Amino acid sequence: MLKPEDNERLVRVGAGTPAGELMRRYWQPALLSAELPENDCPPARVRLLGEDLVAFRDSNGRIGLIDAYCPHRRASMFFGRNEECGLRCVYHGWKFDVDGNCMDMPNEAADTPMKGRVKILAYPTVDRGGVIWTFMGPRDSVPEPPDFEWMRAPSTHRFVSKTYEECNYLQAMEGGLDTSHSSFAHSNYLGNKTVIRNIDTAPRIDVEPADYGYRYISTRKVGENQRYVRVYHYVMPNQQMRGAFKPWFSNKDEKDPHRVPKSDGHLWVPIDDEHTWVYNWACGRDRSVPLTAAFRDESETFFGRGPDDLIPGTFKLKRNRGNDYLIDRNVQKTQTFTGIKGVNTQDFALQEGMGPIVDRSKEHLGASDKAIVLMRRLMLEAIRAVERGEKPPGLDPTTHRNIRPYDGVIAGDTPWQESFADELLAKW
Amino acid sequence: MLKPEDNERLVRVGAGTPAGELMRRYWQPALLSAELPENDCPPARVRLLGEDLVAFRDSNGRIGLIDAYCPHRRASMFFGRNEECGLRCVYHGWKFDVDGNCMDMPNEAADTPMKGRVKILAYPTVDRGGVIWTFMGPRDSVPEPPDFEWMRAPSTHRFVSKTYEECNYLQAMEGGLDTSHSSFAHSNYLGNKTVIRNIDTAPRIDVEPADYGYRYISTRKVGENQRYVRVYHYVMPNQQMRGAFKPWFSNKDEKDPHRVPKSDGHLWVPIDDEHTWVYNWACGRDRSVPLTAAFRDESETFFGRGPDDLIPGTFKLKRNRGNDYLIDRNVQKTQTFTGIKGVNTQDFALQEGMGPIVDRSKEHLGASDKAIVLMRRLMLEAIRAVERGEKPPGLDPTTHRNIRPYDGVIAGDTPWQESFADELLAKW
Amino acid sequence: MLKPEDNERLVRVGAGTPAGELMRRYWQPALLSAELPENDCPPARVRLLGEDLVAFRDSNGRIGLIDAYCPHRRASMFFGRNEECGLRCVYHGWKFDVDGNCMDMPNEAADTPMKGRVKILAYPTVDRGGVIWTFMGPRDSVPEPPDFEWMRAPSTHRFVSKTYEECNYLQAMEGGLDTSHSSFAHSNYLGNKTVIRNIDTAPRIDVEPADYGYRYISTRKVGENQRYVRVYHYVMPNQQMRGAFKPWFSNKDEKDPHRVPKSDGHLWVPIDDEHTWVYNWACGRDRSVPLTAAFRDESETFFGRGPDDLIPGTFKLKRNRGNDYLIDRNVQKTQTFTGIKGVNTQDFALQEGMGPIVDRSKEHLGASDKAIVLMRRLMLEAIRAVERGEKPPGLDPTTHRNIRPYDGVIAGDTPWQESFADELLAKW
Repeated sequence: MLKPEDNERLVRVGAGTPAGELMRRYWQPALLSAELPENDCPPARVRLLGEDLVAFRDSNGRIGLIDAYCPHRRASMFFGRNEECGLRCVYHGWKFDVDGNCMDMPNEAADTPMKGRVKILAYPTVDRGGVIWTFMGPRDSVPEPPDFEWMRAPSTHRFVSKTYEECNYLQAMEGGLDTSHSSFAHSNYLGNKTVIRNIDTAPRIDVEPADYGYRYISTRKVGENQRYVRVYHYVMPNQQMRGAFKPWFSNKDEKDPHRVPKSDGHLWVPIDDEHTWVYNWACGRDRSVPLTAAFRDESETFFGRGPDDLIPGTFKLKRNRGNDYLIDRNVQKTQTFTGIKGVNTQDFALQEGMGPIVDRSKEHLGASDKAIVLMRRLMLEAIRAVERGEKPPGLDPTTHRNIRPYDGVIAGDTPWQESFADELLAKW
Repeated sequence: MLKPEDNERLVRVGAGTPAGELMRRYWQPALLSAELPENDCPPARVRLLGEDLVAFRDSNGRIGLIDAYCPHRRASMFFGRNEECGLRCVYHGWKFDVDGNCMDMPNEAADTPMKGRVKILAYPTVDRGGVIWTFMGPRDSVPEPPDFEWMRAPSTHRFVSKTYEECNYLQAMEGGLDTSHSSFAHSNYLGNKTVIRNIDTAPRIDVEPADYGYRYISTRKVGENQRYVRVYHYVMPNQQMRGAFKPWFSNKDEKDPHRVPKSDGHLWVPIDDEHTWVYNWACGRDRSVPLTAAFRDESETFFGRGPDDLIPGTFKLKRNRGNDYLIDRNVQKTQTFTGIKGVNTQDFALQEGMGPIVDRSKEHLGASDKAIVLMRRLMLEAIRAVERGEKPPGLDPTTHRNIRPYDGVIAGDTPWQESFADELLAKW
Repeated sequence: MLKPEDNERLVRVGAGTPAGELMRRYWQPALLSAELPENDCPPARVRLLGEDLVAFRDSNGRIGLIDAYCPHRRASMFFGRNEECGLRCVYHGWKFDVDGNCMDMPNEAADTPMKGRVKILAYPTVDRGGVIWTFMGPRDSVPEPPDFEWMRAPSTHRFVSKTYEECNYLQAMEGGLDTSHSSFAHSNYLGNKTVIRNIDTAPRIDVEPADYGYRYISTRKVGENQRYVRVYHYVMPNQQMRGAFKPWFSNKDEKDPHRVPKSDGHLWVPIDDEHTWVYNWACGRDRSVPLTAAFRDESETFFGRGPDDLIPGTFKLKRNRGNDYLIDRNVQKTQTFTGIKGVNTQDFALQEGMGPIVDRSKEHLGASDKAIVLMRRLMLEAIRAVERGEKPPGLDPTTHRNIRPYDGVIAGDTPWQESFADELLAKW
């Protein structure tokens, strides 16, 4: 449960709002590198933290991320011409470089002093790990760009995609941090409807604060004297990392594309208060095993059916809020817990189904929600730090550079810290 | 004409609003019994008086009507699994019975005290007369369920359907109570456009208050020394009953499915301030004459063309606000007064055409609007009664149990009270 | 740049708003004459300055423009029957003439005094020049109807159409008054992308106030010692007139339908704050050269592809905001400046692309924006005049009756006032 005023502080992301200002202290994904596939290609619309922007890759490969509207008379820069190291407005030909400088003003006299004075808003960018990152906070305190292990993996071992979600980032991220729901929402092999009672559906959850946020560990009993332990990272303010051992796969088809050794995770990037980009990343853990094409296909929409899940030309799911995710009540009775196809789509049904912004004053949280409760507390503390003029935690890449998540089954009483010691260190 | 502040008191239906609280003192239709066709069938969305709910029929046939959102983390209960006497949330498996008790909380420890403490909002229901009724008012003063004659008729003699209307309930109900418009809006046999002058288009209207609301009588002169008299009931707060003799049918096709002896009527149930469920009911008057399949078909959308009028899978008319009800201006010139097909659709064009909520301060009411004026007065009085902590009229089923509407032509000077005395008593 | 409070004064058009009241002091286009093609034809919806109205042509050809809602119970008059010199509401048969008088009230007693008392709101109209004009201001100061030259041209030499635009009228009109953008937005023969540097893209702009608003002159250097001079009129509050010599056509196909000698222009008529009717008119200048069918076709959407540009049965462009105007990025790279087909569509992309109402506090205006700056000043002054109870400029048709725009190339130093003297006088 959360007081309405705290909920408001956490969910609003526009400029000047508490969480909006916190988000603006961190580098954020603006778009996929692949959305600007080559120099001088068409510009792309970007809506981020409630601001309308346009991104372009210039003739030299530099990335511009500028105001969506021309400073002259506010025509849309999206219709602009990307040419000769600048984006030119098609209304009167004003042209701007990636830093926001006006390079040409052809409808005014050649010697007009306006050209030197007028700038367009431009945010700094870096293109790393398949993602174009931007920093929308104060220019006098731009931190070092992020350096997560998955960003350093070679492209053979790295996968990134994104999906459009129609709700606030916080309830989406809470769905990601939540561990116990996978026994229900993602239970896709019911056999019969009592099967869910045969596994340990109430994992113990331990949370350990860290410089970058926290790591949390879910422990489930498995058979005789074994434990299935998952070590996750919550990286402030909006990323989760997890291992992907997934022992239940052992009962499944050997051809499952997810049997490749990897870590994966999400970033939940606010488009605005009621819409979110979910970035999906995966990172092979073993240098000798690159990510396969089959894995990449299926991962496009994260455990969905791949690119076919998306409405062509968009990042929107075909099975969406408007069609009740094509829930099949017969399948729900007999085969899967939800009757909805695809892990990602199952999550969206639950997260979007709460409405655009969940009313957390009506919640009833239990022991299973421990990680979520701590995330909210860290976020609220970080918001207060920014309000006091201080730096929020985790800005320094050294805090997250070496972390890696892991999952595994441990026999006997060996502490996971011991069993997993090496697996939890980044190798790329 | 109505003062804007009185209009507001009448049209708003959310919890805590004047009319909303009045409506919550009566049992209201929540959905058709047929929408939950069997035990453990898929749940159904219900939006009622501005509240989002989910209905389900449990393994024993009991009906639950609960909050649309799980009390744990507010996932949508619509996606829930209806199984073993409860609806189970697919997020973490919490399961609730029709009374709102939590029966299972599988992601928490088996002995968690939360299970006993957490409830989901659940409204009481009864399933009668083809309709699932609910009571959304104070639990300490639940009245006896309603007992209208049509609810007691056997299914062979009873018909119920519903249609979705895109406007406030009050202007929809005012269209139903209105008697004089049938000579115009529903004049479908123009022959030529002066025909409307040949019938008595300005009926006299008498209104007689009663415990359940009022009955009102429209009297039209017919030929030499005859009167066509219609005796209607307005049953508070949102039902109308009428006979169905309809002497103009005598000039029409003998195969008209409406020639069966019956009463019919509507309930206008607020979905929210700007949307309404119109329940259509009919009840055969003669034990030896069951309602025919042809009659049922046509009645699906109330004097429309039957199920074919509806967008498949919905209760929405194909001829609707978005396509100007497919008005045919040539038909309007030569055949029907409106150029719009279907009595129900004609009414919707007029009622929805006023906009979502009509501005009654701009009206000019005449003698023909007498019944409407009294209905508003009764509603405003009942609202004040509730505000004073008193009971509104008509809660006791004995007030409406024996009433029946009737229409007929009377020769000579016999008072209708005498001619119709037996016809106005319920027989089921 | 404009202060937010001045922007608000200019963009809001509802009754009682500053610009709304100014607009209501002038006759305004309500709809095309062709939308009411014959006596007793179906009525047409009209939304104008934020008011919902219905227009009809009565049995004698007179035009009614009345409240969209019946004064009785507010049913939609759009569904009304247009018959025997009046529009009859289909709810209860009340009938109104073009002046708003109630002619029939058939659901009330024949001698009801209401019939004489009830009126429906009706605005005066005139049907001239292919347009039905109305006056929505105070009835005690109705000015003479407008008398622009193009309205007097015979139908062989006159063309009028309209298009629906999804933004405020002011940014649309500013796009029309703007002269320098044509070298960019409408540059459709790039050859290569540097061609725009080979013409004079920074015209000199002179503005000369006049009783009706102002005329403004753009001058571009052409080759050796020649000038291309365009003389426009801005006619208060929302019309522009311009010549159509267009010397660049000389390089083009002889079959260009626009080679006919003509003037043309637009009126930007506010539907409401966020939607605008753009009326497109053209007027042949030479009695011996009527407008051709090819010209009329192409002009339907103003330099677009004609009627095929429109969604059938509407005045809306197929290439619109919802589909990014079907911009073709490859065409934009190689053939046209915008990659968008059609002059009108190019303008709409720029004007609608700013959002429904542009935020003028973020502008940076230059010398090229002189005409726009003056228009805003004249409008703000006229608004203040109306607020003081005075008449705004240009109400008297003598102020605009004789004006004509013109374009042409002048050799040597002859002043345009001398070269164009005769061409600038109306001939119809």
